[in-house]
Amino acid sequence: MSRVVRLDIAYDGSGFRGWARQRSGVRTVQGLFEEALTRVVGAPVRLSVAGRTDAGVHASGQVASFAGPEGLDLDDLRRRVNAQTRPAAVIRRASWAREGFDARFSATARRYRYRIDTGDAPDPFTAAFTWHRPGALALGAMRSAARHLRGERDFASFCRTPQGNGSTVRRVESLTVAEAGDLVQIAIRANAFCHQMVRALVGTLVAAGAGALDPAEVPTILAARDRQAAPPIAPPHGLTLDRVVYGRG
Amino acid sequence: MSRVVRLDIAYDGSGFRGWARQRSGVRTVQGLFEEALTRVVGAPVRLSVAGRTDAGVHASGQVASFAGPEGLDLDDLRRRVNAQTRPAAVIRRASWAREGFDARFSATARRYRYRIDTGDAPDPFTAAFTWHRPGALALGAMRSAARHLRGERDFASFCRTPQGNGSTVRRVESLTVAEAGDLVQIAIRANAFCHQMVRALVGTLVAAGAGALDPAEVPTILAARDRQAAPPIAPPHGLTLDRVVYGRG
Repeated sequence: MSRVVRLDIAYDGSGFRGWARQRSGVRTVQGLFEEALTRVVGAPVRLSVAGRTDAGVHASGQVASFAGPEGLDLDDLRRRVNAQTRPAAVIRRASWAREGFDARFSATARRYRYRIDTGDAPDPFTAAFTWHRPGALALGAMRSAARHLRGERDFASFCRTPQGNGSTVRRVESLTVAEAGDLVQIAIRANAFCHQMVRALVGTLVAAGAGALDPAEVPTILAARDRQAAPPIAPPHGLTLDRVVYGRG
Repeated sequence: MSRVVRLDIAYDGSGFRGWARQRSGVRTVQGLFEEALTRVVGAPVRLSVAGRTDAGVHASGQVASFAGPEGLDLDDLRRRVNAQTRPAAVIRRASWAREGFDARFSATARRYRYRIDTGDAPDPFTAAFTWHRPGALALGAMRSAARHLRGERDFASFCRTPQGNGSTVRRVESLTVAEAGDLVQIAIRANAFCHQMVRALVGTLVAAGAGALDPAEVPTILAARDRQAAPPIAPPHGLTLDRVVYGRG
């Protein structure tokens, strides 16, 4: 008999070509964990994941799952896997999930944070996890732009490629902009995201904050359903998947 | 005419063989800044520094100084140097200092922080700046040990090699231990430190916190004036020079 194991995972994405396994020799988070898990479990492990993060994107609250033999000692598993994957990537928690749980398909929402350092010089201690973009950003304009991006909408103008059935409709449940000193932080939660959607939304908010885009233009960008209509996307290293929601969360 | 320029500097020490310039080809913080400054100033620059940090040690509040031509535009200098040194190392502030100021000899105290992650798995986002040492530490025992280490004492048992005139007497002005979740943070301020003194003191506090050393033994260790009498020193990457004090500070 096998049961579903849930893994709560954190990683510094700097040294990885993203989550998704690629051909052998390419360092990916999925590849690293699947190889370590396969060694510990003694049978091939394939992970389902809540957020397939791109190259350079980080996660503090990623969730993955797999079917494991009932007798597994999960504390031992976590320790032995971490011994192989740390410190760039670690399992924070390994637990038995309810029957039928799947990290990807059971998730009801994902939350990301995007950090921007607006100071003159980058902070060496946060540079790996923060987009250094010198120059003040007008938070009022960013928040005005954000208002047009909440709710259920067709985000085709903010998607790299249509996914699954091709629908680009997503429900943005919250989108906030906060500031502390030189750090501007954008938090966004949605039921799901199309490819590069967070970085595209951040790019648009930053264009508004920098005065390069009138926030009133955002509805026109949405209506265009054309990626060329939106400002450039933000770089990956400022982005962190910080929470996956299951159930009502 | 030349005047003294004061540089407030921050760096992630991970990729450097310490502050002090070495033979060419060895990456050091001093070497990086001196080369960048020499290019910008157009004349050889040699830096005096408050804390000669070891390989792998970080700084958020390092101070260096040099004699620069009076006409220098310091904002421009900072920007042009940072363009060459960021993001691992940056000048946070460049300013004219009073006549006779020397970053090393004018300093009246230095403050360091040492971070220890006691959690089961390291945190990927702080791993570069934190010693991951799984297992709880008894803060009461660490604080008892710390009480014996404050004040003006002969720290020969905590010095790698005698320096300058050979004296190993230093005045520890404060030494505190704080805890937040899995993070234990030690802050220490002294008029000056001998070589590897902070890491040696941290190693002793950790031995006390782990139950390997009775805090009541610390006076015996001090009296021995022998480095072999003290527990092993802590690794460099948990250590950050965070402030240099000039005047009464």
